Amino acid sequence: MARQSPAVLVATKPAPVVHERVDERVVPRLSVSTGSVVGDMASRLRTTVVASAASEEDRALAERSPDGVTVRAAGGQEIRVRLVRHAPETLSTEHYGLTTEVLWHTMHNLWDRWSAPSFDRASRRAWESLHALNEDITEALLAQSPGAGAGYLIHDYQLGMVPARLRRADPTARVLFFHHIAWPGPEGLTLLPRQFADDLLRGMLGADVVCFFARRWCRNFLRCVEDLVPGARVDHEAGTVRLDGREVRVAAEPLSYSPDALKGLPRSWPEELDAWVGERPLVVHSGRTDPIKNAHRAVAAFRIAAEHPAAADARLLLRINPHRLHIGANAAYLRMTEEAVDAANRHFGEERIRLLTGNDRGLTFGALARADAVVLNSTADGQNLTAFEAIAMGAREPVLVVSHTCGAGEVLGDGALRVHPHDLVDQADALVEALTMTPSRRTAASRVLHEAAARFALPHWTARQLGLLGIDLPESAAAAVPAAGRAHDA
Amino acid sequence: MARQSPAVLVATKPAPVVHERVDERVVPRLSVSTGSVVGDMASRLRTTVVASAASEEDRALAERSPDGVTVRAAGGQEIRVRLVRHAPETLSTEHYGLTTEVLWHTMHNLWDRWSAPSFDRASRRAWESLHALNEDITEALLAQSPGAGAGYLIHDYQLGMVPARLRRADPTARVLFFHHIAWPGPEGLTLLPRQFADDLLRGMLGADVVCFFARRWCRNFLRCVEDLVPGARVDHEAGTVRLDGREVRVAAEPLSYSPDALKGLPRSWPEELDAWVGERPLVVHSGRTDPIKNAHRAVAAFRIAAEHPAAADARLLLRINPHRLHIGANAAYLRMTEEAVDAANRHFGEERIRLLTGNDRGLTFGALARADAVVLNSTADGQNLTAFEAIAMGAREPVLVVSHTCGAGEVLGDGALRVHPHDLVDQADALVEALTMTPSRRTAASRVLHEAAARFALPHWTARQLGLLGIDLPESAAAAVPAAGRAHDA
Repeated sequence: MARQSPAVLVATKPAPVVHERVDERVVPRLSVSTGSVVGDMASRLRTTVVASAASEEDRALAERSPDGVTVRAAGGQEIRVRLVRHAPETLSTEHYGLTTEVLWHTMHNLWDRWSAPSFDRASRRAWESLHALNEDITEALLAQSPGAGAGYLIHDYQLGMVPARLRRADPTARVLFFHHIAWPGPEGLTLLPRQFADDLLRGMLGADVVCFFARRWCRNFLRCVEDLVPGARVDHEAGTVRLDGREVRVAAEPLSYSPDALKGLPRSWPEELDAWVGERPLVVHSGRTDPIKNAHRAVAAFRIAAEHPAAADARLLLRINPHRLHIGANAAYLRMTEEAVDAANRHFGEERIRLLTGNDRGLTFGALARADAVVLNSTADGQNLTAFEAIAMGAREPVLVVSHTCGAGEVLGDGALRVHPHDLVDQADALVEALTMTPSRRTAASRVLHEAAARFALPHWTARQLGLLGIDLPESAAAAVPAAGRAHDA
Repeated sequence: MARQSPAVLVATKPAPVVHERVDERVVPRLSVSTGSVVGDMASRLRTTVVASAASEEDRALAERSPDGVTVRAAGGQEIRVRLVRHAPETLSTEHYGLTTEVLWHTMHNLWDRWSAPSFDRASRRAWESLHALNEDITEALLAQSPGAGAGYLIHDYQLGMVPARLRRADPTARVLFFHHIAWPGPEGLTLLPRQFADDLLRGMLGADVVCFFARRWCRNFLRCVEDLVPGARVDHEAGTVRLDGREVRVAAEPLSYSPDALKGLPRSWPEELDAWVGERPLVVHSGRTDPIKNAHRAVAAFRIAAEHPAAADARLLLRINPHRLHIGANAAYLRMTEEAVDAANRHFGEERIRLLTGNDRGLTFGALARADAVVLNSTADGQNLTAFEAIAMGAREPVLVVSHTCGAGEVLGDGALRVHPHDLVDQADALVEALTMTPSRRTAASRVLHEAAARFALPHWTARQLGLLGIDLPESAAAAVPAAGRAHDA
């Protein structure tokens, strides 16, 4: 029997595959971004991902294959991608770069307010490019639309203005918008010029369902709507917004990991690291060069923890993935972390902390596999998928120390130690607790963590999104979802 | 007939009078702080202000006059003060200085989160000193207590833990706590270590009534209680919190100015300034050296506004009151403002902007009297009393440009132009609108401003606080309150 394709399209700004020129050939590879998660989901749904052509190679490919290309990922999944070409200024550094940096800082409350941000005419011109990006993606979706009542899964913060555009063009559309990063309270959002905040809120409220990874972000979003959208009726209990005669549902849909994406990935643990750590307790902090990742406070907390005998011999490995270092804040974060490590090692009189920069995921997973404790103390983090990679990879039942401002913190229950991202003493206490935990408590915690990770794995996450739109899963995808995982309390 | 003293005591941390050694004599003078407003209020109520002995002169006086002293202010009011001596470390820079700086930054959201704040063991020791300060003030109040059912008006953010202490010592006490500065949303407050936030919230909820200057801060406070105080039932509509079988009312009580305090104050407008401004349009920005005051963005907005013909000839006078310049952020703010002024004047090719630092209130009032527009674009400001001084002093019906994050912005209605503190284009547009306003609209706006200022003047503000506690005003104070001013919609 021929399987019928579901009437669903998926959009995301960063493409799930990136195209690189190797010698004379253009080689596609799976990206390590939001795009890859979304690509994985689309592959399960046997549908197309509409995404931006970002590089010159992407644009060449988009021209050669206007109907899209299919790429096979390392885990065996086939991902069909339709790349959208934009006008050159739409993705320029001065426009798109500035606007996404502004959004990133705003969503994660990274401004001190008195020195930054300030908005001038250039900020407004840059914002217009975000409109153009959203318009291009909307048009590409509509051009591919399977017809009335089609479902659209729109992913991540760069595309917040797609839902209202789709709704205007096709009132029968069923639209889910998923915001992958943090969402601030009204005081944070209103740092943006009023028009920017309105565009985002109105754009997102064009969807039938607005999803975040955590209830924390849903609550902030609902408070923003309450304060800033005249005429909107917010029901915090039900998680709904009534506006213009429609009801918008706002839901927390956590994601742990994609079993397919982790399949077959190598782990490495170089001899040099093995010699440095030996059989000592190992704490691992992992994340990209991004101020939210808070590695320097993990260093400060480790210094305090080291006063305790249980941690006196421990090692701290900071695994840092260099990411968009042309952004001032990211470069400053890396410098600040390097300085904190140097100062701490001088204080210790030996190298107890090592900073390991690099993109090799095998090494990251190797470190997570060796870890006795993993500390993810982000100042704010939409979900922090590393928490779940640590659970999947951990070979020694690592204790998870997670800040309460990570989305992941909400679903790990008693399995993790939750810490305050700015409170060094609290983090130090948790590190000591992690390193002195009895084997039986460690095993019990690990069981809770594995249960949470399984419950929120990508197949369930995908099924829940379609369920929220009232669309049936295609058979192939449904088969892979264990019954218990299809629902959870949001 | 002998007037009966009302059963009310007032407490504030900064004393309404400061004692300075002039030659060999100790001379009391009225302070220019929260203390002066509170002193004025206490004077109307014929009651004593309990406040901290801050200087060596204060402490000497407290020792000589343990039952308090009476000081006559310039406006003729008599203020009775009982100064409380603390252990030396309670008010030390390392303890009290650090803690109040942390609170100030937290309440006004002045952290960028990734570089600051961090809390260690020293922060905790400093916090203990705030407990000691609150304990000392509580004891002094109880020692003076007029008996069961006495009323206590506790003023400002340093004393947030007094209400719960009073309640424990005397369950019959009627306690009003007034927080004079901004209050952040839950994301801002939770930057503090959990215990700090709990101490503040639990401490304040010991009161019967918690007051702020603006609804904005009430809403933030109620959201903090909702998110952070288990068992508390918040009613946003009614503005109440039910906790431990008690009901706490949370109310916005705006304050404009104290007529007595403004009485007889000189205004000066030096020839040199007069020559610089001439008959050109004058914009005035006034505030202390404090990052919230946002003078540098007023400069940036003025540069944009100057592109418009109506503002091409205008002058901007920044009146800056040097305040606690030993605090790094305050000194950096002054430097940043100076640099912005220099760069702008170089850009203009002439001195169109002048920065005038100093504490002489006569000169400040003289500038406000001469102003055609007054811009108060604070990033956050509990009330911003300067807005009302500008109304009282203005001789040319100055247009008020006030940021929507100033408490004052809420009660000035259509009388003021409201701006976004981070949006330079929005501020520039408002400056142009202010300088091109027709005389009839200017007069109409001025009338609205004067009405608002009259409605919220100190006599009404005082009466409302007693009303909220269900305590009758003393005759002398009641006589001075026009009937219309006794109630407003909070």
